[in-house]
Amino acid sequence: MTHSTHSIKALVETLQAMPAPERTFASDNSAGAHPAVMAALAQANQNHALAYGSDPWTAQTQAHFKSLFGEHTESLLVFGGSGANVMALATLLQAGECVVCSDKAHIALDETGAPERALGAKLLMLPTCDGKIKPEQLEALKSMVGVQHSAQPGVLSITQPTELGALYSVEEIAALCDTAHAMDMRVHLDGARIANATAALGGTINALRAFTSDVGVDVLSFGGTKAGLMFGEAVIYLNPIYARRAKYVRKQVNQLPSKMRFVAAQFNALLTDNLWIQLAQQANAMSRRLYDATVSLKGISFDAVPQVNSSFPIIPAQLITPLSDWCMFWDWDMSRSQVRWMTAWDTTEVDVDHFAAGVEAALSVIHSNI
Amino acid sequence: MTHSTHSIKALVETLQAMPAPERTFASDNSAGAHPAVMAALAQANQNHALAYGSDPWTAQTQAHFKSLFGEHTESLLVFGGSGANVMALATLLQAGECVVCSDKAHIALDETGAPERALGAKLLMLPTCDGKIKPEQLEALKSMVGVQHSAQPGVLSITQPTELGALYSVEEIAALCDTAHAMDMRVHLDGARIANATAALGGTINALRAFTSDVGVDVLSFGGTKAGLMFGEAVIYLNPIYARRAKYVRKQVNQLPSKMRFVAAQFNALLTDNLWIQLAQQANAMSRRLYDATVSLKGISFDAVPQVNSSFPIIPAQLITPLSDWCMFWDWDMSRSQVRWMTAWDTTEVDVDHFAAGVEAALSVIHSNI
Amino acid sequence: MTHSTHSIKALVETLQAMPAPERTFASDNSAGAHPAVMAALAQANQNHALAYGSDPWTAQTQAHFKSLFGEHTESLLVFGGSGANVMALATLLQAGECVVCSDKAHIALDETGAPERALGAKLLMLPTCDGKIKPEQLEALKSMVGVQHSAQPGVLSITQPTELGALYSVEEIAALCDTAHAMDMRVHLDGARIANATAALGGTINALRAFTSDVGVDVLSFGGTKAGLMFGEAVIYLNPIYARRAKYVRKQVNQLPSKMRFVAAQFNALLTDNLWIQLAQQANAMSRRLYDATVSLKGISFDAVPQVNSSFPIIPAQLITPLSDWCMFWDWDMSRSQVRWMTAWDTTEVDVDHFAAGVEAALSVIHSNI
Amino acid sequence: MTHSTHSIKALVETLQAMPAPERTFASDNSAGAHPAVMAALAQANQNHALAYGSDPWTAQTQAHFKSLFGEHTESLLVFGGSGANVMALATLLQAGECVVCSDKAHIALDETGAPERALGAKLLMLPTCDGKIKPEQLEALKSMVGVQHSAQPGVLSITQPTELGALYSVEEIAALCDTAHAMDMRVHLDGARIANATAALGGTINALRAFTSDVGVDVLSFGGTKAGLMFGEAVIYLNPIYARRAKYVRKQVNQLPSKMRFVAAQFNALLTDNLWIQLAQQANAMSRRLYDATVSLKGISFDAVPQVNSSFPIIPAQLITPLSDWCMFWDWDMSRSQVRWMTAWDTTEVDVDHFAAGVEAALSVIHSNI
Repeated sequence: MTHSTHSIKALVETLQAMPAPERTFASDNSAGAHPAVMAALAQANQNHALAYGSDPWTAQTQAHFKSLFGEHTESLLVFGGSGANVMALATLLQAGECVVCSDKAHIALDETGAPERALGAKLLMLPTCDGKIKPEQLEALKSMVGVQHSAQPGVLSITQPTELGALYSVEEIAALCDTAHAMDMRVHLDGARIANATAALGGTINALRAFTSDVGVDVLSFGGTKAGLMFGEAVIYLNPIYARRAKYVRKQVNQLPSKMRFVAAQFNALLTDNLWIQLAQQANAMSRRLYDATVSLKGISFDAVPQVNSSFPIIPAQLITPLSDWCMFWDWDMSRSQVRWMTAWDTTEVDVDHFAAGVEAALSVIHSNI
Repeated sequence: MTHSTHSIKALVETLQAMPAPERTFASDNSAGAHPAVMAALAQANQNHALAYGSDPWTAQTQAHFKSLFGEHTESLLVFGGSGANVMALATLLQAGECVVCSDKAHIALDETGAPERALGAKLLMLPTCDGKIKPEQLEALKSMVGVQHSAQPGVLSITQPTELGALYSVEEIAALCDTAHAMDMRVHLDGARIANATAALGGTINALRAFTSDVGVDVLSFGGTKAGLMFGEAVIYLNPIYARRAKYVRKQVNQLPSKMRFVAAQFNALLTDNLWIQLAQQANAMSRRLYDATVSLKGISFDAVPQVNSSFPIIPAQLITPLSDWCMFWDWDMSRSQVRWMTAWDTTEVDVDHFAAGVEAALSVIHSNI
Repeated sequence: MTHSTHSIKALVETLQAMPAPERTFASDNSAGAHPAVMAALAQANQNHALAYGSDPWTAQTQAHFKSLFGEHTESLLVFGGSGANVMALATLLQAGECVVCSDKAHIALDETGAPERALGAKLLMLPTCDGKIKPEQLEALKSMVGVQHSAQPGVLSITQPTELGALYSVEEIAALCDTAHAMDMRVHLDGARIANATAALGGTINALRAFTSDVGVDVLSFGGTKAGLMFGEAVIYLNPIYARRAKYVRKQVNQLPSKMRFVAAQFNALLTDNLWIQLAQQANAMSRRLYDATVSLKGISFDAVPQVNSSFPIIPAQLITPLSDWCMFWDWDMSRSQVRWMTAWDTTEVDVDHFAAGVEAALSVIHSNI
Repeated sequence: MTHSTHSIKALVETLQAMPAPERTFASDNSAGAHPAVMAALAQANQNHALAYGSDPWTAQTQAHFKSLFGEHTESLLVFGGSGANVMALATLLQAGECVVCSDKAHIALDETGAPERALGAKLLMLPTCDGKIKPEQLEALKSMVGVQHSAQPGVLSITQPTELGALYSVEEIAALCDTAHAMDMRVHLDGARIANATAALGGTINALRAFTSDVGVDVLSFGGTKAGLMFGEAVIYLNPIYARRAKYVRKQVNQLPSKMRFVAAQFNALLTDNLWIQLAQQANAMSRRLYDATVSLKGISFDAVPQVNSSFPIIPAQLITPLSDWCMFWDWDMSRSQVRWMTAWDTTEVDVDHFAAGVEAALSVIHSNI
């Protein structure tokens, strides 16, 4: 038995002796649905309701989104997040154009080319560290404008928070929207975790509006699944001019739920009394709690303080497998043994404390073995 | 007040005096989810489970489908029916080819061009009366084979039962598969209502296999939503060679549910003890009961005895609005005042009897007014 | 040797004894390029010229098309006819829409699904006898407008003359444009043989304008290849609002010639002194001459008098192969032994007279054998 | 008048006093067609020939390409270079896959998103300095294989010579093909300037085969336009299995010339007696001559010795406009005042000498002004 095998065996034994968290740190889509959502589903399961959105639950959801973003806005419910993004882009993009996004964007990296397939268009990726695009990067694209050999910048798609958990400030999004609009581009915001952003930026409806409808975002994907639903997202047309063809495009990209009352009922529960913000506050707080509990441990480092519900620690490489076997999380950048710890609406303080204790114990084993 | 207005007023008053059915005859997607499905959802909503299908519920569903169609087959769960069809076609179609379907096909008429958008391919519609394609119609396409100006027949897509409630016999599907394969085409079966077809053709797993895996269907869309789920369909690769790229294509057409355990748990409930067949038998029986109760009434006629869960009566034109206001159903071919009465898994004998009584009473009013 | 073999042998021998036409009746794209076009190509082949249209020949072509259709119009040169159509449609179509065309349209039948591939959109084919759509057929599509399950009628594409050699009158195109625009649709005219239509409808620039720019056609494909070029077509934006993204779309559909001076120089020759109209008048006249020479022969019949450069006679089935072996033409509808005889800009009176003599002699053989 | 304006005025006056080259250094597609090509066009312009490739000229071209690459290979003629690339990729790519190329690739940067539009697929760009991909970059993509969230690497597209004038060695292409095939990928070679590569790598048919058919390239775009044609390229299926759907795809991407004899006749002239290689040798030699004449001048530098028909000198920024006004060339990377000087088949020694003299004189003006 080598020294290294020794060490791993000790790690595994140490962790097995610790109480494992009940919930993992893999992803917010590993969580289930909130009890209020489940209750709403049961309540909506009464007799017959017309399909495809001609039901009272959907009308209520639409009214709710109007109350959030303004009477002139339009919302359409869909099945999933990739579908929401593709639908939004398809209603914004014109012939001859490309979508501009960050090189960390979910649409560019994690949707298997779904946007290219549905749009028949290029995604132009701008290099970023944390997924945040800068206005000057957009400005630099002006050299392509008018050049017939280049797909024309048509839509800017930003993610809030980014896939790396970074937040644009209100001013940053305003500047991007202004730059994009001045270049005759439209702006899409991928808000798969918009609840976490809202919670982090103030936790109020005003905070939500401040970085979306107030600053010129044209269309946003409003995430439901990661926020506590079983399934379901919404595409919100803050600029209703782009909603004109939305219902046809929704069907074209296979995102029209037939028994739509069941998507709507879930959203109605989530939007009531700002439950969606409360749940995101909990998730965010738990990521911060985990950071606070581990940041000072020897052998661990973070690039940044978590702003929302994820942190990206660099930990000893030999720790990754035993620790994630004990309580699941995903690796991120193996070239520097960086992993992702993500919390969800249902992560508890006990979960965090158990996990942090495991991390600490495991690190001790490693250090005692050196 | 004209005679006609008189008559409509009398119709409305007559119907209002009758007990309206608790459930409509609009569509099987107007029904909710079966209690066993709801219970399964609640049961699955426990703590964390890995997303995108790496969960025990999904494994169980896959095993169940293997037990239905054979160990060599593969199943993938998706959100909706249009998505299932588009995904199936996208894994079957090759460059330069078109999809051959009936001129009544859902993919051709009711999916807003979703297949054309996702596939970038033509749907070649063959003229039919009831949605059933004949082998000689396929044979006639041989004149296009090898002609560089014509998209080449690549995939035959049939619907069982058809959108008009007609059923292919086992022999008919076998003949179509043989013809298609001889022409180097692949065969997709849109089984959005495959439960109703199975119930009508024997109500056993052997009956299911007889018109699918036994006769050469390559890929099928296995409907869950209309069969009693809240949402969820499956794409079944009976010929697993076509499953090779299926998981990537599923994501590309926005059909990968992140919290997939909730699709799988529903299917597990539906597939247990052949619940899906029992529910379809009930729906089919209710359509037959409604037909039997109304076929002899003066002023109504049917093109055919219902084989599954829909009938397409021709009724007096002035009856359509009052009757559907009283108990919802959809019109079908207004040029001949033909409507569609569709039953669902939850339609009861009392629903049918109340509805038939309303039809009879309304027809009496009309005839007494002539 | 059977009676039938006897007869065919006699046919072949009879035809071989006749002088065969120097030019075939297969298609106008079997002809070569006009001498003035060849001279223009040689003249343009001098030293260097900037690629992609930044050359003086292209500027001259653009000026010429402005003189034809108005200063506000825009023209872009492309390689081929299918490309011209696809490019035009791609600049007109919006997300969620379909293209409406006749069931005889070249875009629907003879382009291997190129429009569906490039557009990701459905082509909705309206049934016609001779390729001419009627306004009431468009009106009937209003029932689809607003229905989220139906791709929305977005572009009407008509062909002038149609693929069967029929001509819309000025009033007919005006009515179609008015109906289409009232339905918020745009109008594309496939003018692969617009020269023949212009020649037939008066042979003047005013005649050309009367059925295009004067009546509301938005974009047209202006055919060059069949009119006497070696290769090259133009897409003309009569409504320049749709030209905004045209140059990008041209490249996207692979229709941007790099050495564009060679397309432009050809068009400059063709457009000078209305050469294109003169050549089409010759082609049209030759089809009429052939019709006049054969219409009274026993055993031949025509559905219509040729309006442009093609006729579609029904001839004895056994005549088709020997006659087309002697002088090439294509069959059309073999179910009724209908063929197509097409003339080109270079067809001579001698060609027609020799061909008609061959037809007459062959028919005599057949009748003497009965 | 400022010092700088002074200097520019002096530059302009100096250059105007020099004899300007008759041909520019803008691009090889600024050149016209070779006289032998023009003669072939005139010769082919005789009477009628069947369209779409059923003519003797096309048969001869196909035979010629078989003699180059092997009897089992297939060639199809097309209009242009972007079309050739898109067609090749469309016949190689499968559902769920992406195209892997360099970040300097013409398909990625200079085709306005044509590949994404026609393929509905992502182009995955690998970072390179000179457009040359390394096998280890392909190997690194293995981490994506099997991941359902990632489009799967399906086709490797390389360019020979690259857009920056770099050449892969035979061994380098062999290694890339081996790596790609081991990863179940197919290999496309964009040979828009394959003549220049062939000339540079030996100037023989064996040299051509050595870096294409001998080492496992599956499909190549064989450039004609830049090599001396008026228009026309060929797609060569070295692995004929991928040719199966080629003719349908060619039409689908609008690349089927109707009067195809005129493409074929040009190629027949170019391929006769290796004219294409001789012309490329001349172009290459002229770039080397220009390099030799300017490399030692003060104020100019090159990243590399030109291998084919382009060089990318860094020159004083103030020289760019006056010099290119005097004799046209394009800028390349303005951040370092790098430009591109490109020669063509028709560039003469006198052209080069006049240009080099102008460069030298202009540099003297600048240095005398400092």
